[in-house]
Amino acid sequence: MKALGYHGPGMKSWDEVPDPVIQHPTDVIVRMVATTICGTDLHILKGDTPEVVPGRILGHEGIGEITEVGSGVTQLQVGDRVILSCISACGVCGNCRQGLYSHCLNPEGAAGIGWIFGHLIDGTQAEYVRVPFAENSVYKVPEGVSDAEGILVSDVLPTGFEIGVQYGKVQPGDVVAVVGAGPVGLSAVMTSQLYGPSRVIAVDLDDARLARAREFGATNTVNSGQADWAQRVLALTDGDGVDVAIEAVGTPGTFTMAVNLVRPGGHVANIGVHGKPVELALNDLWIRNIDIAMGLVNTNTTSMLLKLVAQHRLPVDKFVTHEFSFDQIEEAYEVFGNAAEHDALKVLIH
Amino acid sequence: MKALGYHGPGMKSWDEVPDPVIQHPTDVIVRMVATTICGTDLHILKGDTPEVVPGRILGHEGIGEITEVGSGVTQLQVGDRVILSCISACGVCGNCRQGLYSHCLNPEGAAGIGWIFGHLIDGTQAEYVRVPFAENSVYKVPEGVSDAEGILVSDVLPTGFEIGVQYGKVQPGDVVAVVGAGPVGLSAVMTSQLYGPSRVIAVDLDDARLARAREFGATNTVNSGQADWAQRVLALTDGDGVDVAIEAVGTPGTFTMAVNLVRPGGHVANIGVHGKPVELALNDLWIRNIDIAMGLVNTNTTSMLLKLVAQHRLPVDKFVTHEFSFDQIEEAYEVFGNAAEHDALKVLIH
Amino acid sequence: MKALGYHGPGMKSWDEVPDPVIQHPTDVIVRMVATTICGTDLHILKGDTPEVVPGRILGHEGIGEITEVGSGVTQLQVGDRVILSCISACGVCGNCRQGLYSHCLNPEGAAGIGWIFGHLIDGTQAEYVRVPFAENSVYKVPEGVSDAEGILVSDVLPTGFEIGVQYGKVQPGDVVAVVGAGPVGLSAVMTSQLYGPSRVIAVDLDDARLARAREFGATNTVNSGQADWAQRVLALTDGDGVDVAIEAVGTPGTFTMAVNLVRPGGHVANIGVHGKPVELALNDLWIRNIDIAMGLVNTNTTSMLLKLVAQHRLPVDKFVTHEFSFDQIEEAYEVFGNAAEHDALKVLIH
Amino acid sequence: MKALGYHGPGMKSWDEVPDPVIQHPTDVIVRMVATTICGTDLHILKGDTPEVVPGRILGHEGIGEITEVGSGVTQLQVGDRVILSCISACGVCGNCRQGLYSHCLNPEGAAGIGWIFGHLIDGTQAEYVRVPFAENSVYKVPEGVSDAEGILVSDVLPTGFEIGVQYGKVQPGDVVAVVGAGPVGLSAVMTSQLYGPSRVIAVDLDDARLARAREFGATNTVNSGQADWAQRVLALTDGDGVDVAIEAVGTPGTFTMAVNLVRPGGHVANIGVHGKPVELALNDLWIRNIDIAMGLVNTNTTSMLLKLVAQHRLPVDKFVTHEFSFDQIEEAYEVFGNAAEHDALKVLIH
Repeated sequence: MKALGYHGPGMKSWDEVPDPVIQHPTDVIVRMVATTICGTDLHILKGDTPEVVPGRILGHEGIGEITEVGSGVTQLQVGDRVILSCISACGVCGNCRQGLYSHCLNPEGAAGIGWIFGHLIDGTQAEYVRVPFAENSVYKVPEGVSDAEGILVSDVLPTGFEIGVQYGKVQPGDVVAVVGAGPVGLSAVMTSQLYGPSRVIAVDLDDARLARAREFGATNTVNSGQADWAQRVLALTDGDGVDVAIEAVGTPGTFTMAVNLVRPGGHVANIGVHGKPVELALNDLWIRNIDIAMGLVNTNTTSMLLKLVAQHRLPVDKFVTHEFSFDQIEEAYEVFGNAAEHDALKVLIH
Repeated sequence: MKALGYHGPGMKSWDEVPDPVIQHPTDVIVRMVATTICGTDLHILKGDTPEVVPGRILGHEGIGEITEVGSGVTQLQVGDRVILSCISACGVCGNCRQGLYSHCLNPEGAAGIGWIFGHLIDGTQAEYVRVPFAENSVYKVPEGVSDAEGILVSDVLPTGFEIGVQYGKVQPGDVVAVVGAGPVGLSAVMTSQLYGPSRVIAVDLDDARLARAREFGATNTVNSGQADWAQRVLALTDGDGVDVAIEAVGTPGTFTMAVNLVRPGGHVANIGVHGKPVELALNDLWIRNIDIAMGLVNTNTTSMLLKLVAQHRLPVDKFVTHEFSFDQIEEAYEVFGNAAEHDALKVLIH
Repeated sequence: MKALGYHGPGMKSWDEVPDPVIQHPTDVIVRMVATTICGTDLHILKGDTPEVVPGRILGHEGIGEITEVGSGVTQLQVGDRVILSCISACGVCGNCRQGLYSHCLNPEGAAGIGWIFGHLIDGTQAEYVRVPFAENSVYKVPEGVSDAEGILVSDVLPTGFEIGVQYGKVQPGDVVAVVGAGPVGLSAVMTSQLYGPSRVIAVDLDDARLARAREFGATNTVNSGQADWAQRVLALTDGDGVDVAIEAVGTPGTFTMAVNLVRPGGHVANIGVHGKPVELALNDLWIRNIDIAMGLVNTNTTSMLLKLVAQHRLPVDKFVTHEFSFDQIEEAYEVFGNAAEHDALKVLIH
Repeated sequence: MKALGYHGPGMKSWDEVPDPVIQHPTDVIVRMVATTICGTDLHILKGDTPEVVPGRILGHEGIGEITEVGSGVTQLQVGDRVILSCISACGVCGNCRQGLYSHCLNPEGAAGIGWIFGHLIDGTQAEYVRVPFAENSVYKVPEGVSDAEGILVSDVLPTGFEIGVQYGKVQPGDVVAVVGAGPVGLSAVMTSQLYGPSRVIAVDLDDARLARAREFGATNTVNSGQADWAQRVLALTDGDGVDVAIEAVGTPGTFTMAVNLVRPGGHVANIGVHGKPVELALNDLWIRNIDIAMGLVNTNTTSMLLKLVAQHRLPVDKFVTHEFSFDQIEEAYEVFGNAAEHDALKVLIH
């Protein structure tokens, strides 16, 4: 089969490689119908993720059709059209039993992490994929859900919702600020609506992204290039700060922006993938009764979000801006890697 | 009357000052029976808290007897023996209505903070005190509760419980580490028992304090001066870290110790009063599904804790190690300010 | 002044009575601008509420202007336009400190209940009202909120939201059934949207009310006069039952309907005012992992709901179907008491 | 092998039957080392549970050693000493993914229930047992845990804790009443300590059981045969009722006792297995802001409780009062079925 191999920092190619085979009774093999690229894939290509070894097939999102099932699989069948979750969960370990699937003590790859596709085992930017712990790691695609909709459920939608909105404890009536209007920030903008906020304020440097944020449900937008951007956000609150600030970029500067926006008693949720430590002004903050949450998606809400997608209650079709065939995957990387220039959000490879 | 006045960094004295008078219908006047000193008072004396102006009477803890009530006070009477809470709450503003008494939008002193005694208005290290919003800010002393027990309820006990144990989300079966075995750390050690932890591990540099922690209910202690202190703590868990790490010192080093001890899915609660920013290794932590909480006590649990104290279900009598009369208050400061040397915990001035 | 006096079962009249006066420092006097009638008023008139004594002025909802303030009132002023809450809360007692305002241990009237207007003290169907504990019991009307909108915040909106939606623990993606599409049921239909349900199913015997439920946000409606009504509801779920069933009528039959609709692991919330005991089939239910909640509104969410009303994010203007002047109040009772005949929902008297 | 077969109402015998065999890749076979009898087994023998067909092997609690593993089992091995949970959970279905293991949509036996041993498939009162979904349904016995301790973890301990204490929302400082001091009631008495209550009051008709309740941690006991029993319970509260009332009998009378004891804002948790409907006085209760929860144990806390048992922090060794060999199992039923006469609590068959 063909697959996108990682060959060290800056190097990748669409290679001919052996087809995957069932290794454990709980595996299935999936023929990929659609995949996409995540910002994390770009980090890996920069060499930021040393546990990804050369030769690894990239990608952790996708939709496909089951072509083979292991002997221990009873609730999935050949021919099922399924969404592959970015998190592979054994369903049995202490962390899985607590719903902490993100830290599945998964015997595949390194211990202690549920994200293994395109990381610790071969991923989804390929014609075929072996899916371990399949019954706990794939979701049947409901009727009427397109590839462009379903693929959001692999990662982007639950990540924005669980790590941004739920870890941020959004409640009815809240004023929510989302710093960063890329795919995951827009997912937080969209899914925060599920908790009835009074205002959702998108903050970004790029006016085109802010315009898009309004399409995704932001009630207000503020360009953080303006000197008085923080006052503009505070003017949309009762003056003490937002109830919830969601960081969706991954830099020290944007993290500090989020922390400084939140009112006493409020919540900060960090979704951004950070490459550097940040400074936390505990000398000012210790007295402010805030909390700061962070993490990898648990996919506890994937089924629920998929149900809402199937009912067309979340306009997820707005995410895919560009489409490619599998053999155009390197072009897809080019577009996604220069998203601002191409006004790209998510690219669909199918 | 006599009271302890602050006269600029490093300067205080037991002065003759005018008696306080009722200023608002919701005030009461209390004749102090007992007071104590908090680590925060030492910070103020160093000049770290510039909003405390020279001339201010210090102190925010105490027990006394009501000698006069304002015209709007209906549920308290002259002669009532009451504990003064460190937090003064109007009971009416938006924050109070949400139970966020720590950020009462209190018309006395600066807006937005419920801690005003010995800070924004005159405090409790005095023979008489004016107590604003008295019905929401004092607690009648139940029968059988001594001064040495009741005074813990002003601040130390609810602070350790609410900001350490509750913000740390301690649950039955948890392994809890408390970094710092001073009064507030010991309060967290003691009150974490109210949520049925499997282990409470006290961590400190001072073996005398660790011995005391075991008296307060720590199941294990680790001296953090040992090179392998962290491994010793992890050996008491299933290997992935503690469920809850409580910081009760207030330095960058101890904060980082707490953050590094916690398992994926765990919780960090900061009680320490910090004078400097800290570095937060978000590059490692973004993926670990932890949260970090901090704040000033809300006193939501003060009544409940006082009930348990009255039933002698919390051995709070262990806190007071030294006693002084009011005119020995400067000596009390000397002992409390050099606590290690005197093996002092809380001093009772009465 | 003029006011609507209760004179024993079935008897009421628009009487000339003495003006109310300030009795306690925390009272204010309000000149009523608008009031309305609640189903509970009809119960009282039937004689179902024996603690309402003849001579009592009826009504517990309203909007007015403050004409006098007690000496202990600092945060309200003469001239303030305010909404009167159906719950009067002292803000100080043990229950108020826990946010259980519905059971304020209020020194006015009988102990242990926060609903006192038109019940234990004179109510709001009058030209002037004395409001006890005013700072905790009235809400300033934000700009742009009409009488017809603001009056919903006195009782109907928070009751549907707190006792129906929040006690029912509605979560994103849930299927919610509301049994009974009167004013409070419609409030639950409308406010359940604040938690992102996948479906809200209104169930009633009256097709006109069901049509209205669709205007208020019901995604589906089922007429319970049909033999297969329950199957029709279950067909809108995954087959196991609804996640949340809200009872908004107050009869044994509708309560049993709600209980039988709920899936294992689901929630029943009772808002209805019941006149008789109900039979609970614990022999079937003990194994089903459900809970059943009930109660009087706490008004913890009144400020939040009022904020959403002011932002026009909740279409509360749909509630008032008929308007009357104060001297037409008996006609208003006639219309509201025969709501189906007049297709009436809420009547505004102003 | 030998096993206890059910042969219709009132009939059971210790029969020679075929050994169980692996049927699915996720099964294991266990050689039983110890089992016990539950009140539910007595109900089945009365014929109250018609889905139990003649020929069924009884029992849903036990400890044993794995003698064979299915091909899909990777995390258990032959020779492992394990506790069998009363709930068999597939770990994959929608209910399991939400932690609602009690309603596992288990393909074995009838849909929608996780309790299948001795109910829908053959149970644990046998020399060998086939355990479906073994990785999610058994727990390795930690070192130092005896059979008499470990067997409590199959059912009694998590049922009392999850359905009584957690569904009753016990919080630090609460006054808790437990109506019924049989094994599950005593489990609730013991495990409520994990949430720091101020008082745990056991209520029963039998003074011997009340004496035992005090050994299990009840701070107070009240014999409900006394005319003033309810006043005696209320005298241990602040007068308004208990915070949490736990029903652990299963009759209309005891359920009503529990409901009537609870204060406004409090919680009722029903653990009892009921054979008849109960009357619920909604006419009085609708206004009292209580909730009533009920259900089958989910075993979400089994691992945590087992950890506390292994640390000897829960004195579970007090439960087993009588011991028998497997071939004395009918005698064991005789003693357990007449528990009061024999002063029996749990019987250990090993």
